[in-house]
Amino acid sequence: MTFDPLLFGEIDPPQRLLMGPGPVNAHPRVLRAMAADLLGQFDPEMTGYMNQVMALYRPVFGTQNHWTMLIDGTARAAIEASLVSLVAPGERVLVINFGRFGLLLTEILGRIGAVVETVDAPWGEVVPMEAIAAAIARTAPRVVAAVHGDTSTTMAQPLDGLGELCRAAGALSYVDATATLGGMAVETDRWGVDIVTGGLQKCLGGPSGSAPITISDAAAEHIFTRRHVERGIRRDDIADGAGQRIGSNYFDLAMIMDYWSDKRLNHHTEATSMLYAARECARVALGEGLDARFARHAAAGRAMTAGLRAMGLTVFGGDAHRMTNVTGVHIPGGVDGERVRTAMREHFEIEIGSAFGPLQGRIWRIGAMGYNAMKHKVLITLGALEACLMREGFALPPGAAVNAALEGWDA
Amino acid sequence: MTFDPLLFGEIDPPQRLLMGPGPVNAHPRVLRAMAADLLGQFDPEMTGYMNQVMALYRPVFGTQNHWTMLIDGTARAAIEASLVSLVAPGERVLVINFGRFGLLLTEILGRIGAVVETVDAPWGEVVPMEAIAAAIARTAPRVVAAVHGDTSTTMAQPLDGLGELCRAAGALSYVDATATLGGMAVETDRWGVDIVTGGLQKCLGGPSGSAPITISDAAAEHIFTRRHVERGIRRDDIADGAGQRIGSNYFDLAMIMDYWSDKRLNHHTEATSMLYAARECARVALGEGLDARFARHAAAGRAMTAGLRAMGLTVFGGDAHRMTNVTGVHIPGGVDGERVRTAMREHFEIEIGSAFGPLQGRIWRIGAMGYNAMKHKVLITLGALEACLMREGFALPPGAAVNAALEGWDA
Repeated sequence: MTFDPLLFGEIDPPQRLLMGPGPVNAHPRVLRAMAADLLGQFDPEMTGYMNQVMALYRPVFGTQNHWTMLIDGTARAAIEASLVSLVAPGERVLVINFGRFGLLLTEILGRIGAVVETVDAPWGEVVPMEAIAAAIARTAPRVVAAVHGDTSTTMAQPLDGLGELCRAAGALSYVDATATLGGMAVETDRWGVDIVTGGLQKCLGGPSGSAPITISDAAAEHIFTRRHVERGIRRDDIADGAGQRIGSNYFDLAMIMDYWSDKRLNHHTEATSMLYAARECARVALGEGLDARFARHAAAGRAMTAGLRAMGLTVFGGDAHRMTNVTGVHIPGGVDGERVRTAMREHFEIEIGSAFGPLQGRIWRIGAMGYNAMKHKVLITLGALEACLMREGFALPPGAAVNAALEGWDA
Repeated sequence: MTFDPLLFGEIDPPQRLLMGPGPVNAHPRVLRAMAADLLGQFDPEMTGYMNQVMALYRPVFGTQNHWTMLIDGTARAAIEASLVSLVAPGERVLVINFGRFGLLLTEILGRIGAVVETVDAPWGEVVPMEAIAAAIARTAPRVVAAVHGDTSTTMAQPLDGLGELCRAAGALSYVDATATLGGMAVETDRWGVDIVTGGLQKCLGGPSGSAPITISDAAAEHIFTRRHVERGIRRDDIADGAGQRIGSNYFDLAMIMDYWSDKRLNHHTEATSMLYAARECARVALGEGLDARFARHAAAGRAMTAGLRAMGLTVFGGDAHRMTNVTGVHIPGGVDGERVRTAMREHFEIEIGSAFGPLQGRIWRIGAMGYNAMKHKVLITLGALEACLMREGFALPPGAAVNAALEGWDA
């Protein structure tokens, strides 16, 4: 094979502003942290960093849970790890479904062999807690699973009281907070839910590839009943549980907890550079202060929404449950949505998002999260969108969007 | 919770020489590549980088396979993705087992619900091809799975002819080349095997967290019969297959191939920084030249083995099938193996490896791979080990190890 390895040259991505539903631009401190050299996976400095990550992510998740750590994969990996470790084949699970990522939960559970029930809301709405209560009563689930913020619809599901409902029904609970962790309040302990997972590439301003997770003692106890240590590394001090073996080795939270415990049971080789990134994401977030960070995301969402409306566009979905960090907006009639996205990218080096399923071709999704939830980035994006829409022949009041966004930021 | 996010300070690992069985120190070019900012996952520059990764890893794997890409997780993730996508519950699989990572294959397959057969060799040996042929005839497997280099025993299984045996028996084949890819010849097409997976953190000199994989057309065709696109992102141009749905969503190679194809079907969010790292690992390897690289690893292995023997130590396992990049050596009688490892780390900032299972406490495993398969690093490691052994009271001929290693390097 003739092949020139120099053909492709050094990595040199364009300097693009990522204002879609994620990934977004990484915080420079996170990128720098990844440049540190590797460590042996059981070197004391490495296990020290693992323990620091556990401590750093507890406040990020709003929890005192001991088991707070990382899954080595993208956000979706942590979702699957949670569900496959919680749920055995044949067990009943209730999914709170209001978008594509609710459907993803049903999809993953189906592959696990769970009996999947749903309580649904139309895309653009959320599920009322009364409907959830009724569905729990109707289905008697072993586990209740929900998405916090579903970027496919830009809606954030209220979760206050969910844990209490679940405990009263003897169910464990799981929440996918991929799109909100570090940007909107994720209150694991106040919600009273058992497992919550996130991702770095949204409001935490890091790269995808490492997924924070927190696990309650009750969920951990349940999962440890399914512990089944691999042959080749069994030890006298780690006994198998009596429950059904977890269907995945890589996603076996019992073994992963043993790896992150003082037992340091060998499992996979921790993704060291991604751990450095996750650690720095948390340090950046906690250094800013979570409340300040949530306020910054809220200001960016207000500014974006105000700006889009001032342009004469219609924002998608209800205001009451809108995510602060990603905004859906209807593509106006007569405008080619993909041509606008291409113009935004080619003229302004700005990415905005398209949409999935029933919303594909109907809305754009514009994010302002993590390192990009900043006033100037919202303003630049709105100004660029205005210019691109005008070139498409869409009539709008020039300059109104940026002005409204400036007012919206401080509102 | 009182919490000071500054408590832990900036990432600042010690400058440690990692001469264990992996991870090893990353090549500085790989660390620098990860410092590049992120891209949207469907931006043309991002999909362009994905296509470059496919082209770069074909020669690394010794293959013309179209489907050559990355799994977003550690090496173990790619193993599980391969097996769960190839094997349906109840199907018979033959595992070529000669160490801890052969046992890992049986473990993963057991969780998938496969009927697992093994053909075994004692730790320190490999399985003769005649025994494999007999086992295939005896068990009539749907899939044959093997490890190439098993770091638990430091042995490399010969695989020439395996593909032919499998095809004659109507079986697909899988090889775990985590510990050899980029360091010893991995010849996917010459072996005639269907799926081969690797990792970055061994001979490729990168961080763990992204796992290269190559898939033959025959295996891809089989896997696409199990395609089942998620609700929420189904499209008219992508039809489901008639085969049994794959048991994992995250590890569904049909969806991952659709993501890496021109269809760009959304699945997980590609771990961008890890993709940058994987791309640079391949550029470094191909820039050096694979033959030169294999020769460098062989020289390092020869030097290490000669040095250890000159110290009066006994190298573990047979010479005929020894991996070039990691060497097992018996801990001499009267020496506390863990105390020596600690002294190596604390006095010399050098990590060497302990061992698993039946070899735990009996051997050390000393690696020289990727960026660390260098003459000076082998010499420094041997010199440090000599000093630590002398302090333990072990009688050895001072200076002999380094001298023998210098001669072994050029032998």
